[in-house]
Amino acid sequence: MQLEDVLKDVLVDVADHIGEGKVANYIPALAKIDPRKFGMAVVTVDGDIHVTGDAEEAFSIQSISKVFTLTLALGRVGEGLWKRVGREPSGTPFNSIVQLEQEQGIPRNPFINAGAIVVADTLLSGHQPRETLGEILSFMRYLTDDDTIIIDAEVARSEQQTGFRNAALANYMHAFSNIHNPVEKTLGVYFHQCALSMNCVQLAKAGLFLANRGLLTRGGRSVVSWERARRINALMLTCGHYDASGDFAFRVGLPGKSGVGGGILAIAPGKAAIAVWSPGLNANGNSATGTKALESLARRTGWSIFG
Amino acid sequence: MQLEDVLKDVLVDVADHIGEGKVANYIPALAKIDPRKFGMAVVTVDGDIHVTGDAEEAFSIQSISKVFTLTLALGRVGEGLWKRVGREPSGTPFNSIVQLEQEQGIPRNPFINAGAIVVADTLLSGHQPRETLGEILSFMRYLTDDDTIIIDAEVARSEQQTGFRNAALANYMHAFSNIHNPVEKTLGVYFHQCALSMNCVQLAKAGLFLANRGLLTRGGRSVVSWERARRINALMLTCGHYDASGDFAFRVGLPGKSGVGGGILAIAPGKAAIAVWSPGLNANGNSATGTKALESLARRTGWSIFG
Amino acid sequence: MQLEDVLKDVLVDVADHIGEGKVANYIPALAKIDPRKFGMAVVTVDGDIHVTGDAEEAFSIQSISKVFTLTLALGRVGEGLWKRVGREPSGTPFNSIVQLEQEQGIPRNPFINAGAIVVADTLLSGHQPRETLGEILSFMRYLTDDDTIIIDAEVARSEQQTGFRNAALANYMHAFSNIHNPVEKTLGVYFHQCALSMNCVQLAKAGLFLANRGLLTRGGRSVVSWERARRINALMLTCGHYDASGDFAFRVGLPGKSGVGGGILAIAPGKAAIAVWSPGLNANGNSATGTKALESLARRTGWSIFG
Amino acid sequence: MQLEDVLKDVLVDVADHIGEGKVANYIPALAKIDPRKFGMAVVTVDGDIHVTGDAEEAFSIQSISKVFTLTLALGRVGEGLWKRVGREPSGTPFNSIVQLEQEQGIPRNPFINAGAIVVADTLLSGHQPRETLGEILSFMRYLTDDDTIIIDAEVARSEQQTGFRNAALANYMHAFSNIHNPVEKTLGVYFHQCALSMNCVQLAKAGLFLANRGLLTRGGRSVVSWERARRINALMLTCGHYDASGDFAFRVGLPGKSGVGGGILAIAPGKAAIAVWSPGLNANGNSATGTKALESLARRTGWSIFG
Repeated sequence: MQLEDVLKDVLVDVADHIGEGKVANYIPALAKIDPRKFGMAVVTVDGDIHVTGDAEEAFSIQSISKVFTLTLALGRVGEGLWKRVGREPSGTPFNSIVQLEQEQGIPRNPFINAGAIVVADTLLSGHQPRETLGEILSFMRYLTDDDTIIIDAEVARSEQQTGFRNAALANYMHAFSNIHNPVEKTLGVYFHQCALSMNCVQLAKAGLFLANRGLLTRGGRSVVSWERARRINALMLTCGHYDASGDFAFRVGLPGKSGVGGGILAIAPGKAAIAVWSPGLNANGNSATGTKALESLARRTGWSIFG
Repeated sequence: MQLEDVLKDVLVDVADHIGEGKVANYIPALAKIDPRKFGMAVVTVDGDIHVTGDAEEAFSIQSISKVFTLTLALGRVGEGLWKRVGREPSGTPFNSIVQLEQEQGIPRNPFINAGAIVVADTLLSGHQPRETLGEILSFMRYLTDDDTIIIDAEVARSEQQTGFRNAALANYMHAFSNIHNPVEKTLGVYFHQCALSMNCVQLAKAGLFLANRGLLTRGGRSVVSWERARRINALMLTCGHYDASGDFAFRVGLPGKSGVGGGILAIAPGKAAIAVWSPGLNANGNSATGTKALESLARRTGWSIFG
Repeated sequence: MQLEDVLKDVLVDVADHIGEGKVANYIPALAKIDPRKFGMAVVTVDGDIHVTGDAEEAFSIQSISKVFTLTLALGRVGEGLWKRVGREPSGTPFNSIVQLEQEQGIPRNPFINAGAIVVADTLLSGHQPRETLGEILSFMRYLTDDDTIIIDAEVARSEQQTGFRNAALANYMHAFSNIHNPVEKTLGVYFHQCALSMNCVQLAKAGLFLANRGLLTRGGRSVVSWERARRINALMLTCGHYDASGDFAFRVGLPGKSGVGGGILAIAPGKAAIAVWSPGLNANGNSATGTKALESLARRTGWSIFG
Repeated sequence: MQLEDVLKDVLVDVADHIGEGKVANYIPALAKIDPRKFGMAVVTVDGDIHVTGDAEEAFSIQSISKVFTLTLALGRVGEGLWKRVGREPSGTPFNSIVQLEQEQGIPRNPFINAGAIVVADTLLSGHQPRETLGEILSFMRYLTDDDTIIIDAEVARSEQQTGFRNAALANYMHAFSNIHNPVEKTLGVYFHQCALSMNCVQLAKAGLFLANRGLLTRGGRSVVSWERARRINALMLTCGHYDASGDFAFRVGLPGKSGVGGGILAIAPGKAAIAVWSPGLNANGNSATGTKALESLARRTGWSIFG
């Protein structure tokens, strides 16, 4: 099997579906994206890069950023993080507040919005948002060896102006003492991390350590321990697609994290990191055609972690 | 790595924890089990069998039976089953009825009680409970090549006498037309399947096809297609431990299904099926020491599916 | 103000609305009722009776029976009843099971189905359903001085055959030990009490003690203490119309209890008991035109308890 | 019956209970109140005033203010208000956010916090908070003919600093477009209205129009129509005590609204308005001894609206 050929076949499989789904429209900067964009990049643990379509056009990674802020936060506070956020699938949409009331301000997992806001609060930890965002940006540039990655200020500003549900979540958790910094500062970090602008190649490179036992490259420097890489993968599998996580595991069989910008990062442990981008979303808020492309890729490569 | 040695090390790891947890006491037949029992069996895809402790003493497999009835039901009605039961983690305890009200009588997945009752209803499908139970028993004996497996009538009777929550679930789903047979017949099948009495060796043998691309033995007959084996594994990973499924994936990293009798069946795809038994349960109703033993085994073998 | 004239005016007010709403169709015996039926009876504390329309045609009183079984149960077990059932509006539909899970099998109030099933269980208390139903029937006949009141066996049978949600509620509460008799016996009482067949005059007469300080007639025998009559009225006001109780209080301003057969019993303390019947139901399951008629009557008489 | 004597008897009835309950401690200004304070004032529709205890000592009226802002808002936007807030008891605590998620940002009623925030938003309606608060203060002074009533700035400031749950509610409703002004302005109005400082005599006077067919005094000027007075009373009865509204109706039998400062305003239609103050709260957040005093008063006067 040549990955080059696999990608060609995947493109054939999804050709008729490109443009499907509904582009996120809650902020102008996302709404104006062309729904017919489609890109995919596979970076193997050997360092080979295979691409198809618009794989080098930057998009807003949105919630995919949660994987990287979680990695940073675990590096800083270690397993103590789990006192403030759970590790269970939520069974509810990404921005649900019901679960928080039932569980006293402890979000179910770090990939729903409430959980990612707690993670951002952990990273902020008394600093200024500017410093924390600098740290996040440095980390992304380090993982990709690419200093051109930026945060899209216009997107961040739009998020801030329309983010009332996230403000509700943050204030609510503050009432339970599970936000330690001023709400607006924590939200500032969160809204900006979501506005990270990256293309599929950069995103796949950034996620490679999760496919690679925690190492930056085969035999290279360690980003996280092997065990931690496994655990982050486990969280992506059980919680990475909100209330469609079970379906993604069933159909694709790889750990993955989606973003409302239409991107998905998927991990084939020991094999490769894969990034796909197609802006149209399905009913659960995950890339419709992106999911189909990963399903095709997983079937054609046999990379499913389930046998 | 010799599996023989691994099992010895696992036993050392858990030795101080044997007897921990709380034995299920809702029916007399379960409550009287000695909490200090501990057994483990590993059956590899090559057919090798490794055991430790009380691996040949039969126990009530309870909810682990849901894996096998799901397999049978998929064989009978195919993917159409998913119209009557979902594939998402529930985020709620095994016997919660709240989710059913919110989702119009469609259970979240086939491994919570409500979902398994729908699966049993599918198998019953106009027949008499006795016939359906005969079919289930034949399937278990076929998978294990062992005709000594039985259903413990005393346990089944006890379940029936105390199963008011399950009766509530079944009646409730009937009100939504998602139970098609008379409630008491469907419950009859469900209560009896839970009373299957098996030991760790039998259970690991029965689950081997899930580690083995759907084949009974390496190169042997097909039980299910490779793709279906993967999908059942995916369901076990995301939903196999109720509202502790995320934690099990995080700590153990293998698809698994627990039972309130203290058993757990875990699958290491391409490697082996593992059964463990230790009656004491943790707060989520899963075997406390059994989970620890699987965590130790996965770490020592590197069998985690997450890298 | 002559009540005779008021009733005429009420009839004019609702004339254009007769036939509105949706007749309950879950059991054949209810579904076949002519939706254009409309009757109303007012029985004053002085014993005067005023009627309009089909006030002497019997209908299935359904949930209105809960007022009378509650009265009987309080007579038997006194205020201890409140250990098994609450006194708060539920904020949920009449047959919701969610609240029961959150509150450990204790129904919110005696007028939702779950609460009324507990009340029936209290009355049954080790006897046979036949005896308890005899007692209920005797009570209705005593209150109305009318031995022609019967339980419609066909309706009761239909309820039993379709009552899966109620069976779910009863089994669920049994799991929390809040049903003390065999589930099918308790449900037998409940289904039959709902099948009581009465006309508006009989129903208003039966409720008169609640308008009359607990006395059967002015200066007559005591059914309940004055304080208990007040309290039952308070429960009717806050809980008598399920999740539309607030709206009924807002619009009508009288304690009332509705039934899915299209009847409503309303109490004007110190003034009169009113029964209205119009089979078409609104979205909350209460008589659409019956509510309008009571709104008109309350406005024209100034009988609102709110000033 | 002389009201003077009734109040003496009430004081005897509650004497042993003064100091019971737990003073609200979430803001310092409330926490430092002497728990042994007790005051009561009854203002009849004839204008007679009867007092006992600390009836002329000002306290923070908190949620009782919701009755008056509702009255103002109905005067401004009329029945159209009910498009933005419901009229049903919530069955949940005063600050629950769960109900809002289920019902798309429409609060159940105007007396839970979310509902009162919507009411405040209605009053603000593009103005500055200072203007709206001026209007509220003028209304309270007009109703009581007492220009000494003030808003306690220290209490308002404390509320603002600790009001993260209320900020969550407001942001959440803004996300559903049910808050029309900037969240911090609407909250500014809400936090300050809760900080109104009044004594029992002032509060009873302010509420008199609700006992008096909407008139300021017998035969005096109209504050609201008779019908609207009835409807506000109905809302107080079904929703005025959060998830203990049913219990208050059952025990006291009068429309009432409680505040976390320990005050309760109760209305005996056609008879009198009653204000009671005792800072210790019961488990539902309502004045423990204040409720007992009203229960005693209602029993001794026979003012229950339920017969």
